[in-house]
Amino acid sequence: MNDLASVTSRADAVALDAADPLLTLRDELLIPEGIVYLDGNSLGPLPRRTPGRVREVLEREWGQELIAAWNTCGWMDLPSRVGDAIGRLVGAAPGQTVVADSTSVNLFKALAGAVRLRPGRRVVLSERGGFPTDLYIAQGLAGLLEDEVELRTVAPEALADALDDDTAVLLLTHVSYLTGRMHDLAALTDAAHAHGALTVWDLAHSAGVVPVELDAWGADLAVGCGYKYLHGGPGAPAFLYVAHALQGSFRNPLSGWMGHAEPFAFAPDYRPAAGVGRALCGTPPVLALAALECGVDLVERAGVAHLRAKSAALGELFIRLVDRFAEAHGLDLASPRDSERRGGQVSYRHPEGYAVIRALAERGVVADFRTPDVARFGFAPLGVRFVDAWDAAEDLREVLENGEWERPELARRHRVT
Amino acid sequence: MNDLASVTSRADAVALDAADPLLTLRDELLIPEGIVYLDGNSLGPLPRRTPGRVREVLEREWGQELIAAWNTCGWMDLPSRVGDAIGRLVGAAPGQTVVADSTSVNLFKALAGAVRLRPGRRVVLSERGGFPTDLYIAQGLAGLLEDEVELRTVAPEALADALDDDTAVLLLTHVSYLTGRMHDLAALTDAAHAHGALTVWDLAHSAGVVPVELDAWGADLAVGCGYKYLHGGPGAPAFLYVAHALQGSFRNPLSGWMGHAEPFAFAPDYRPAAGVGRALCGTPPVLALAALECGVDLVERAGVAHLRAKSAALGELFIRLVDRFAEAHGLDLASPRDSERRGGQVSYRHPEGYAVIRALAERGVVADFRTPDVARFGFAPLGVRFVDAWDAAEDLREVLENGEWERPELARRHRVT
Repeated sequence: MNDLASVTSRADAVALDAADPLLTLRDELLIPEGIVYLDGNSLGPLPRRTPGRVREVLEREWGQELIAAWNTCGWMDLPSRVGDAIGRLVGAAPGQTVVADSTSVNLFKALAGAVRLRPGRRVVLSERGGFPTDLYIAQGLAGLLEDEVELRTVAPEALADALDDDTAVLLLTHVSYLTGRMHDLAALTDAAHAHGALTVWDLAHSAGVVPVELDAWGADLAVGCGYKYLHGGPGAPAFLYVAHALQGSFRNPLSGWMGHAEPFAFAPDYRPAAGVGRALCGTPPVLALAALECGVDLVERAGVAHLRAKSAALGELFIRLVDRFAEAHGLDLASPRDSERRGGQVSYRHPEGYAVIRALAERGVVADFRTPDVARFGFAPLGVRFVDAWDAAEDLREVLENGEWERPELARRHRVT
Repeated sequence: MNDLASVTSRADAVALDAADPLLTLRDELLIPEGIVYLDGNSLGPLPRRTPGRVREVLEREWGQELIAAWNTCGWMDLPSRVGDAIGRLVGAAPGQTVVADSTSVNLFKALAGAVRLRPGRRVVLSERGGFPTDLYIAQGLAGLLEDEVELRTVAPEALADALDDDTAVLLLTHVSYLTGRMHDLAALTDAAHAHGALTVWDLAHSAGVVPVELDAWGADLAVGCGYKYLHGGPGAPAFLYVAHALQGSFRNPLSGWMGHAEPFAFAPDYRPAAGVGRALCGTPPVLALAALECGVDLVERAGVAHLRAKSAALGELFIRLVDRFAEAHGLDLASPRDSERRGGQVSYRHPEGYAVIRALAERGVVADFRTPDVARFGFAPLGVRFVDAWDAAEDLREVLENGEWERPELARRHRVT
């Protein structure tokens, strides 16, 4: 947005909100009074519609229909229905995305499946500093396969050069949980393919906030999280994308009955479903799927392009405002300054980052801290206003100027609520 | 119960209910008017307390506390808190049971972990006719390990003889989903141990309805389902038991961050939690855990011994009543007649089993069908009364005598609601 440079007062920020077409959708989220919530990248706020929908599933569907609801209420279709809806947010045509299990479990399926599609290659290549569970899952798979497979991590900038003919899979988080840095998914996918490797993308910090075009970019497999920018609720189920081209050969190692071609034939031998349904494993978590669907629906109504534009503008405004005092107080921007290379969050390093985040919380500004020294400010655009970015920057300035991170009782005095 | 033989009228059954100390707890379940629900072994009815509790989690915890709720509302503790509660129902001392993922996913963890604890042995022994997903998961593991491991299935009565020094794991469902036949878990565990094998028990049809003493019987690993006799809701998360003695050496192949010794240290290398926490993988499904806890609490208040006694009596009454007309109509009891060897359900084979179940449903009696010819009648004791067993038997008799299974419109005429 061109006018961000001209924001020099709180009133200017309020004016930006007044012109924001997404502001009306903010009313569909429950955001507690007096809170500036900048942690939607960890847990998106509650859509106001969710409790009613969940209650309907509990009382009318489960309560009244009982076992019949699997058919009469469409429960069986939830994994693919919500999966296809998420697919629309990440550039995946229908029939390639399902919702099931957790991000970590889906990563295991994707990674194991991919490794077995590249026999003779032993390296899973990833980056140092990637989200730990991605690395842990790769380590778990390597351990189970007793070092037929090896996880190799390199610095992010060395990834393209580290690809070689022994690379089975390139495993990467699209947007870094720590810094918000965004990889060029299309280019790295091309580079992996040039070496005959497959790609597994973790879209936990991407889906619903930055544009992703899985089909157009030639992605192979991808996973992502339901409880961040998709507003699915704490521990919401995750999604898994398997490109059409791979579906016939992809073998899900977690070959549970819901991925069977005919689950209710109760045949003694596993026979995978024809399409992406083979990526399912156990019985679908109906309550959680219904809650997630409410969040996904809200994101879809807003539109990823609008959400991206607003999130980038919020981050840019915040960076501009913090620029005025960052150096004087030892705040070091850990995120790319260029919003084209940054996801939905802005991170700063500060030696007392943890105490700073705590002092901000005392003022009602909820951000978070990641070890060793990173303060993360999430601009999940459905719930955050320009005035929130202004207030958060002002609070951050005052916390640092007053030394409130050393004396939280000072912060309490300023708390809005 | 001694007086079952003397039940010769509906009034006698009503009298049994009047004397049943569990009857008051039935009011804590929502059971639709006019329905005789004999499918609690597939999906337990809704506890009336669940919607309020889930709403609290949504509106107060998620809605108001947001990210802080992971600590302030005890979300982080849910997997072990609900796990320990289920542990109390299956004879497991605290610190050995967690709730996470689905039964199938937990089976994969248990089976893969067990196989790696018995290096050099290649056989996973199970039974023909076991619950298909158990077999599918073993097949998936064998496929991933490229036939280092082999699933071998034998007839149930041949299991003990089939154990040998090449058996890594004995994998069995305690109570058969098809016939309700119950294995002697203690004896088979001893037999497996005598051959140096580990045991993995699927308690899907056991937990909350038959006595299980995992610790006392020397079980190694066990999994089970939250949405049957535990009333956790459709697709509720499952549980996983790892005996104390194995916890130090058990390696969870699904080594996600929640099983890490310090998940929030974000260390680059996986280091498993000291106890059963290492069996966790992804972020806990909070809504579903809260719902499951309501069901588990209800089961615990009733007490497994009381539930077992009532379930056995209900099954016995039903068998006695059906005995009067079974042979004349080609109904063949597929369950053990001896309730000591039978779980919470009674199954009959009938060539037109599917049509019979449909005709019963027209009358408001909900039971279910399993291929190829099995009609299952579940006596989940919290929600079923003696009069329900009476009515179901009477309806079954009339359906068969009237040929309603061939002409469902006849059944509709008799429907209660």
